[in-house]
Amino acid sequence: MNIIEPRVLKGFRDFPPAAEIRRRALIERIEASFRSFGFAPIDTPALEYAEILLGKGGGETEKQVYRFTDNGGRDVALRFDLTVPFARFIAAHRAEITLPFKRYHIAKVWRGENTQRGRYREFTQCDVDIVGSNSPASDFEILLVMRETFKAIGAGDVAIRLNHRGLFNRFLATLGLLDKSVDILRLVDKSAKIGRNAVVEQLSGVAGDKAEKILQFIEAKGGFEDVLARLIELSGGPSPESERLADIRTYMLQHAAAADSAGGACILDPSITRGLDYYTGIVYETFLNDMPEIGSICSGGRYDNLASLYSKESVSGVGTSIGLDRLIAALEALGRLEQKTSYARIAVVCLKESDAGAYQAIAGCFRNAGLACEVFFTREKLAKQCMSAEKKGMEWLIIPPEDSPLRGKLVLRNLATRENSAPLSMEEAVSRLKAALEV
Amino acid sequence: MNIIEPRVLKGFRDFPPAAEIRRRALIERIEASFRSFGFAPIDTPALEYAEILLGKGGGETEKQVYRFTDNGGRDVALRFDLTVPFARFIAAHRAEITLPFKRYHIAKVWRGENTQRGRYREFTQCDVDIVGSNSPASDFEILLVMRETFKAIGAGDVAIRLNHRGLFNRFLATLGLLDKSVDILRLVDKSAKIGRNAVVEQLSGVAGDKAEKILQFIEAKGGFEDVLARLIELSGGPSPESERLADIRTYMLQHAAAADSAGGACILDPSITRGLDYYTGIVYETFLNDMPEIGSICSGGRYDNLASLYSKESVSGVGTSIGLDRLIAALEALGRLEQKTSYARIAVVCLKESDAGAYQAIAGCFRNAGLACEVFFTREKLAKQCMSAEKKGMEWLIIPPEDSPLRGKLVLRNLATRENSAPLSMEEAVSRLKAALEV
Repeated sequence: MNIIEPRVLKGFRDFPPAAEIRRRALIERIEASFRSFGFAPIDTPALEYAEILLGKGGGETEKQVYRFTDNGGRDVALRFDLTVPFARFIAAHRAEITLPFKRYHIAKVWRGENTQRGRYREFTQCDVDIVGSNSPASDFEILLVMRETFKAIGAGDVAIRLNHRGLFNRFLATLGLLDKSVDILRLVDKSAKIGRNAVVEQLSGVAGDKAEKILQFIEAKGGFEDVLARLIELSGGPSPESERLADIRTYMLQHAAAADSAGGACILDPSITRGLDYYTGIVYETFLNDMPEIGSICSGGRYDNLASLYSKESVSGVGTSIGLDRLIAALEALGRLEQKTSYARIAVVCLKESDAGAYQAIAGCFRNAGLACEVFFTREKLAKQCMSAEKKGMEWLIIPPEDSPLRGKLVLRNLATRENSAPLSMEEAVSRLKAALEV
Repeated sequence: MNIIEPRVLKGFRDFPPAAEIRRRALIERIEASFRSFGFAPIDTPALEYAEILLGKGGGETEKQVYRFTDNGGRDVALRFDLTVPFARFIAAHRAEITLPFKRYHIAKVWRGENTQRGRYREFTQCDVDIVGSNSPASDFEILLVMRETFKAIGAGDVAIRLNHRGLFNRFLATLGLLDKSVDILRLVDKSAKIGRNAVVEQLSGVAGDKAEKILQFIEAKGGFEDVLARLIELSGGPSPESERLADIRTYMLQHAAAADSAGGACILDPSITRGLDYYTGIVYETFLNDMPEIGSICSGGRYDNLASLYSKESVSGVGTSIGLDRLIAALEALGRLEQKTSYARIAVVCLKESDAGAYQAIAGCFRNAGLACEVFFTREKLAKQCMSAEKKGMEWLIIPPEDSPLRGKLVLRNLATRENSAPLSMEEAVSRLKAALEV
């Protein structure tokens, strides 16, 4: 028979135990942080009607989507983000949910992207959103949950670069350029990539002699209050948008004064616009202080009309999305990921294959005490079983009495020192290992 | 603008918070049980080359698979189980993994099945396998992890119906019918559905006057030892297959004698064959003692050539697969599922919207103590905030001092009794709620 090459699709990945254990550990900590703020999980189908996912007909998106006709003749597609399914979810479940509705969703999404830029075609997003509240307090909570989550996973302090899309639009309106906002946003978004001169030149094509003024706006720098004052001036005086930024700033200062855990900066940065996204209020991008060079690891903002494709009711919300893969790459480079290939740090050795039931009963005592425990299946020399255990990253072996495994005393072998304990009762052995492994 | 109806595909489901919280709670307990035995997680792509997934060209399977051509012209398909990707994984990673290799994989799979039978087209499987060991001790471990897992999730005791495919084949060989084993297995597998008379009739077409003998084999009943003795007799005397069943039985008795946690029966049932599956050794199906009528909730067995499509090396393994959706349906009917819509059982009320930063700092003290805590965003009458909290299933509200939320004392309102505590310091409030909520 011909052998089929066991390859995976380009841009797709296997996660062997070491990679999956650290991925799961990270997801568990992110989830615990989201839950601590009262966010509840939802899940939605991986596959949806293409019309639902692509309703907006975004050109770039459409090209990247895995879309096909199913066996029932339906035009379907794999989700390419968690935001569009969430919008559909809100419209579908509006009658059952209580607003404000706080949900998280951690799941895979699929995009046929160009893998040459180090992108994957299957990747995991971690989204949190609050919908049904337009309060600046909900904007602040999203910024806070993000900051606390990065701290909880050991990524350290983050710098949040915050802006308000509405304030930028108000400024464009004072220049009479609001109708050109799409083109201008696209250019502003490219500024980090193409450089100031290119932006001035291209902006002049759109905005004429007001190009320089636009650059003054997006280049405003300094402390939060200074920049905010400058933006208020450039956008024609105080406005609901500038007040919202001021409220968020007040909350930050209150929180920093009270919580020991403040840390990390929040910078008012008018060059952050999130391009052509659906945001209408605050927008932000987030950088790790310990590794700013990898770029934004988390971005988001406020939207006013998320579910408008599927519902006449408009629901305002604010949310954020952590790209798990980039985060893992950063934490790996920083040496802050768990390194283990198994949850079991102990194992019962096999002295007699006919005693496998008794060995499992011994292992059960350790498992019941919260210690994951393997049982070796094959009778081999003790030295060989030690080597297997070490190869699996284990720390202790449990050596049962050879003749009557369930009656005599156990010996514990410390694999680091190769030393054996004195014979111990089951209770002694369990408490010895709980202490040694800090369980 | 036209509204797009926010529907999901037939056979696909949204999981709103209440459903997803209980689903996650169940998965977390299943994972904890798998991990306690030293199984490590892996993950594989949802999408694979169709050739990889459908190599065997199974007729029924092929019709159900979501298969399409991607934008790069590749013939791809969504995985329809976790076993085939695991076989591919083993072949691809053989050089890196240490045998025996114990992995679990909990993930969604997709099949375009007939939804009229209450089946879903997107559903979750929970698989555990041990590959690279042909020891009966590994067969026993799979049976044990299954039994312990059902106990750990509150499903109670299970009855495992066990058989050995090889022993059945040996019996057929003594009748000179080994070459008809596929047809016979198919019939035996249908016996529960079509009834004894129909089986006798159809078997006679295949096996002539030996039909009655085949039925004697598959209908052998009684205690494990009695049935085993009968099967040994019918299959021409002791064999490696009957010895393996005897070994597994010995391990069970050893374990039951030692562990308080025995419980649940293991029945030797020669009518269990797992039809046309790839199993070559033990096979079994598992039933909840408290709800046998829903049928097998977990099945599996030993296979000798799992990765043979992708590799010349043969790797023996044994595994099991829990169908999460059927299990959830059973636990729901038994009233054994968590019923909550949020992880947060407490919230800080909003007395002044301008104090949102301080409220988050107060909530942070509870979160740091392990108590998930919401913050209400909008100033509303206290009675209204109580109602919102109750609607969300909360148990306590934290009422900060109105004038200086971070300096005065807090009042705790018990939503069940509507009683307020005396004013408490932050430390007192935290320890009061930890005690009340048993955290």
